[in-house]
Amino acid sequence: MLKLYSFGPMANSAKPMLTLFEKFEYGRDFEVQRLDPSKFEHHTDWFKAINPRGQVPALEDGGRIVTESTVICEYLEDAHPTAVNLRPENAYDRAQMRVWTKWVDEYFCWCVSTIGWHRGISHMAKALSDEDFEEHLKKIPVPEQQVKWRRARDGFPQDMLDEEMRKIAVSVRKLDDQLADNEWLAGGMYTLADICNFAIANRMPQGFPELVNNDDTPHLVRWLDQINARPKVQEMFVTIPSERLAASRD
Amino acid sequence: MLKLYSFGPMANSAKPMLTLFEKFEYGRDFEVQRLDPSKFEHHTDWFKAINPRGQVPALEDGGRIVTESTVICEYLEDAHPTAVNLRPENAYDRAQMRVWTKWVDEYFCWCVSTIGWHRGISHMAKALSDEDFEEHLKKIPVPEQQVKWRRARDGFPQDMLDEEMRKIAVSVRKLDDQLADNEWLAGGMYTLADICNFAIANRMPQGFPELVNNDDTPHLVRWLDQINARPKVQEMFVTIPSERLAASRD
Repeated sequence: MLKLYSFGPMANSAKPMLTLFEKFEYGRDFEVQRLDPSKFEHHTDWFKAINPRGQVPALEDGGRIVTESTVICEYLEDAHPTAVNLRPENAYDRAQMRVWTKWVDEYFCWCVSTIGWHRGISHMAKALSDEDFEEHLKKIPVPEQQVKWRRARDGFPQDMLDEEMRKIAVSVRKLDDQLADNEWLAGGMYTLADICNFAIANRMPQGFPELVNNDDTPHLVRWLDQINARPKVQEMFVTIPSERLAASRD
Repeated sequence: MLKLYSFGPMANSAKPMLTLFEKFEYGRDFEVQRLDPSKFEHHTDWFKAINPRGQVPALEDGGRIVTESTVICEYLEDAHPTAVNLRPENAYDRAQMRVWTKWVDEYFCWCVSTIGWHRGISHMAKALSDEDFEEHLKKIPVPEQQVKWRRARDGFPQDMLDEEMRKIAVSVRKLDDQLADNEWLAGGMYTLADICNFAIANRMPQGFPELVNNDDTPHLVRWLDQINARPKVQEMFVTIPSERLAASRD
């Protein structure tokens, strides 16, 4: 059985999780082991034995580990093709799909993530004593993640937050423009491009209502509704609990 | 015939260029149209009609354009399989290959690029009059690229340069460690992982001799030598002229 180590169904964790739900039967073909970010489970020794970078998601398949959310999605298609194909067969369309998944990984996910950390993770980081925080920092294997945790505790610089908000506005415009003329992002079908972007964008109407709403981004909202209406998406949200981390705004 | 729009055989341009040389015959199966970065040809209207982002490389195949260097490499394997297969057949090995190509795109290429701009592009940017520079800036479609050009002209902040140098040292260590126990980066064969990393790392023994040398990174140097000895690599360097932009150091 495939096993996904992940947080709840949002952000990078949702990419391979939704891919699994779309392609396979939960409990029969795959299971999800949910790590608790508020307990820093991804930085524990047991999990770093699975992924030395201390990051979710990670997929276990026959004793081997595949990491990096987008890589896992393509791996599932390569290693376990099913009747549900989430990549276009045509090479040109597949390339367009990859331009969109790459854009998520290099641009879209980062700006949304920083604002998410500013609103959510900051509270966690500030709740720790100085001593606990420094102790915890030592357990984080990726230096850039240490920096991000420190910024979450000290406060992200305002010019960084402004720049990330600018990039979020650019991202939202780009998605809405593409979806104005296309039912799906690439290749005329529901693909990993939709799944990977949905994972980042799904909560934006609540988190960024000034940017993502029926008036300003009707096509993006339509596309989110369309994906949320899919039976497998609903099954995922019912089956795997979400964290409440990013719920607060300040 | 396939047509690659690119700069000379280094950095992102070298990824699809070397993939093309390895898989096909130059002049029979593909051609390369080299743009002159010192004339900002990639920001001209004719090229922005090909890639609206004003970035090389871009591949033309039967009237359609594929962009993004790593995406082009995978596209060439998907669309035009030949006897030379640069991706492992095994799904797990292919995933490992993608972890390495993704790492180039998200980490390794950026730190090397910033130092390359600091050393090379800065001279170009500073040689322009204020008026010419501002005029030119308007032709650059990607806002983040505009920022990079402005930094190249004004001077990159020292803390940014220091941080990028730290990341370069991390990158070099990571490559050398992997290559200590492995002839190639992924899947026990020469793959797109090697090509994409080689594209960024090839000039490092000259550009960063304090980091990449026989004493500190013998495995990385061995791997560079091994790739440079390949007939198709030699053919590429003889056939397609390199720019001299990054040659100066300060």
